[in-house]
Amino acid sequence: MESHAKIEDLGKPRVVIVGGGFGGLELAKALRHANVQVVLIDKQNYHTFQPLLYQVATAGLDADDIVSPFRKILESQDNVFFRLAEVQSVDTAAQVVKTSIGLVKYDFLVIATGATTNYFGDKKMEKNSIAIKSVEDAIMLRNTVLNNFEKALQVGDVVEMNSLLDFVIVGGGPTGVEIAGALSELRKHVFPKDYRELDFREMDIHLIQSGPTLLKGMSEEASQKSLEYLRRFGVNVILDRRVKSYDGYTVTLNTGETLITRTLIWAAGVAGAPIEGIRKESVLKGNRYQVDEFNRITGYHNVFAIGDIAAMTTPEYPEGHPMVAQPAIQQGKLLAKNLANLLSSCALEPFHYDDKGAMATIGRNHAVADLKLFNKEYRTQGFLAWLMWTFVHVISLVSFRNRLAVFISWTWSYFNLDKGLRFIIGNKREPVPVEETAPKEVV
Amino acid sequence: MESHAKIEDLGKPRVVIVGGGFGGLELAKALRHANVQVVLIDKQNYHTFQPLLYQVATAGLDADDIVSPFRKILESQDNVFFRLAEVQSVDTAAQVVKTSIGLVKYDFLVIATGATTNYFGDKKMEKNSIAIKSVEDAIMLRNTVLNNFEKALQVGDVVEMNSLLDFVIVGGGPTGVEIAGALSELRKHVFPKDYRELDFREMDIHLIQSGPTLLKGMSEEASQKSLEYLRRFGVNVILDRRVKSYDGYTVTLNTGETLITRTLIWAAGVAGAPIEGIRKESVLKGNRYQVDEFNRITGYHNVFAIGDIAAMTTPEYPEGHPMVAQPAIQQGKLLAKNLANLLSSCALEPFHYDDKGAMATIGRNHAVADLKLFNKEYRTQGFLAWLMWTFVHVISLVSFRNRLAVFISWTWSYFNLDKGLRFIIGNKREPVPVEETAPKEVV
Repeated sequence: MESHAKIEDLGKPRVVIVGGGFGGLELAKALRHANVQVVLIDKQNYHTFQPLLYQVATAGLDADDIVSPFRKILESQDNVFFRLAEVQSVDTAAQVVKTSIGLVKYDFLVIATGATTNYFGDKKMEKNSIAIKSVEDAIMLRNTVLNNFEKALQVGDVVEMNSLLDFVIVGGGPTGVEIAGALSELRKHVFPKDYRELDFREMDIHLIQSGPTLLKGMSEEASQKSLEYLRRFGVNVILDRRVKSYDGYTVTLNTGETLITRTLIWAAGVAGAPIEGIRKESVLKGNRYQVDEFNRITGYHNVFAIGDIAAMTTPEYPEGHPMVAQPAIQQGKLLAKNLANLLSSCALEPFHYDDKGAMATIGRNHAVADLKLFNKEYRTQGFLAWLMWTFVHVISLVSFRNRLAVFISWTWSYFNLDKGLRFIIGNKREPVPVEETAPKEVV
Repeated sequence: MESHAKIEDLGKPRVVIVGGGFGGLELAKALRHANVQVVLIDKQNYHTFQPLLYQVATAGLDADDIVSPFRKILESQDNVFFRLAEVQSVDTAAQVVKTSIGLVKYDFLVIATGATTNYFGDKKMEKNSIAIKSVEDAIMLRNTVLNNFEKALQVGDVVEMNSLLDFVIVGGGPTGVEIAGALSELRKHVFPKDYRELDFREMDIHLIQSGPTLLKGMSEEASQKSLEYLRRFGVNVILDRRVKSYDGYTVTLNTGETLITRTLIWAAGVAGAPIEGIRKESVLKGNRYQVDEFNRITGYHNVFAIGDIAAMTTPEYPEGHPMVAQPAIQQGKLLAKNLANLLSSCALEPFHYDDKGAMATIGRNHAVADLKLFNKEYRTQGFLAWLMWTFVHVISLVSFRNRLAVFISWTWSYFNLDKGLRFIIGNKREPVPVEETAPKEVV
């Protein structure tokens, strides 16, 4: 018999939220005045502002600038109980969640576990590449890059040295584009000053996109301009190619071409992070849960899913909403209302996504933005888009402390052409040893 | 045959500095205009402002606030070559240092490896306690404390819970006193808001000092006041006791008394961190190198030691200078001059320590200071000392970026009674499992 986790019973309906990303956190906050007990479970004790993870990975921000401890955010909310735990499975018949600290009973369960990296079954890619889904990933990428440059100083062989200096980024979505842009800035303004002994004309940044355009889902102007900016910054954008394999040294494309790199950044796909115990019939393509217009997982009356893990298929969004922050936040907010409606036997309100558009930054003074305001579309690229991107990201941060820190850090970097956080603290990945037999041609 | 590390030969005398602490970094900077090649070797790629490590450990500052990458600090100095490497040994006959990246030749060798924690041979203590000598230690202590509190929420047994909430700090020097003070602040202002479910009257902070006074080496007023402040803040200061053993759970004192804690912070002693290959005759008590008045290690003409690792015994300092930042900085500065003197066959200048006094902070608005200015002594305790401590520490930070970050962070914390950096990122230590047989009495 499993024992139950120690959580005070308030004698009120209990809403258990699994995952404190944008959706889960918004829901917990929106339940502030609801007559329920909220139990928020996350495997970290902090909320991560994921859209800026790539800045941590590229030394532009420190981890502490973009995370906030849950206990601090929810400090004044008496009905929320946070638990640092990993969820292992759920038993919907018994209405309990099995976690690393014991069983947790629920009256309403909300799964907000977000998404995880999709390697499409390629175990070797999973082992050798770096993806950026967590703060620890981002720190590891930063440490690995800096460590590789230190190693490059000691290498005599030119190909071997290039393998340490070059980068291959797979995936031309916002993450891939933003990382490529940030690396090109580091190459231009920062690394040559740090490593006078290395020749940074040798540092190649390759961005590989399987389709014919970058930033799929954004406007043609945005795709076009982001390509133009990246090429202007010296990024080698390779369109219409797929990566077939990567062994930690040689990247092989579907055309048979090869690239040599120690650092492959995998930004080519995400999939939902489902929980054991939810009926298989409700799991759609990409491991997302099929939910109705109230975010209820099909087949259940008291189990919900919000954010990236939820696929609410509508005529406008036949594959579910985009896996970004806004749908998660809006669903979290509405679900708080609907849980109150359920408890007072009122009619539920269906979800309508208020699409505010999309943005991506490519580098200093360069971004692309497709905005939707008052049912009108505005498209802009360049400096204005970059200003908007900066403003939106600063004000969207969770705490005032984070906003201040990011604002100061960015202002500083902007005028000093510097990214100050170039230290190796914590985990890094050592380069995979090159077998003597490894082919050494570079495309 | 070992291969040589790849470092360009400038055809100038080469000064190899091992360790980029206060002394090594100051020396490298002071050699800016000298006609030498400087090779700075450190096992980290950043300089650490050690006096504020305890603030990182207690969530008051983030690691990035108190570290600066060496490459950034020395960016404009063409004659400095930084290498990220571990030094394994030195061959003074061949004039080479053996490192993890190969052999490094020197004309002048300066050992500035600082000090390491002294457990006085107690392996069990070394395994079970936490010392704070590096950023990674400080982060681990922070993570371990927060993780223990999360665990305390799930514990039914009162003694077991107390073991997670209680702290034992061994050593009543500045580090021990400052940590005890910082923990008492967290207990008063921060933890009760984060962990409403825990009763923080149960959180005991014990500070154990082997002698009859705290802050040995400072004035009697400073010792007396720091004791008074700590007791006022609810720290249980235990004087004239030594810790006999600690198994990760039970602390046994020399009197036979026991305390129960999962977190023992060891701040009871430091010793030099010597390098293999230096003649044993020059190693004094506490593993420090005996140096002459020019910081030359006795028995060598071109091997020097500065900072904590150097013991320059004088009538006024029969055991060498205090192991703090000021002697290291002053020795680094003078050695730069003397190396230039050596090269131009001028007379060397002997070292005279300009003692500016000592300070320690106990908590919000409370510090003690013994200052020496223009050959006069000034002693002050309380708010004025605290203001001075704060000012001196902010301006002493290495980069303007750090100064700004620390200033903002402290101002923020001061007015919000908050310490914002309460996240668990990186390594932590899991509590040692309690054997069934472990005694469970609390003193």
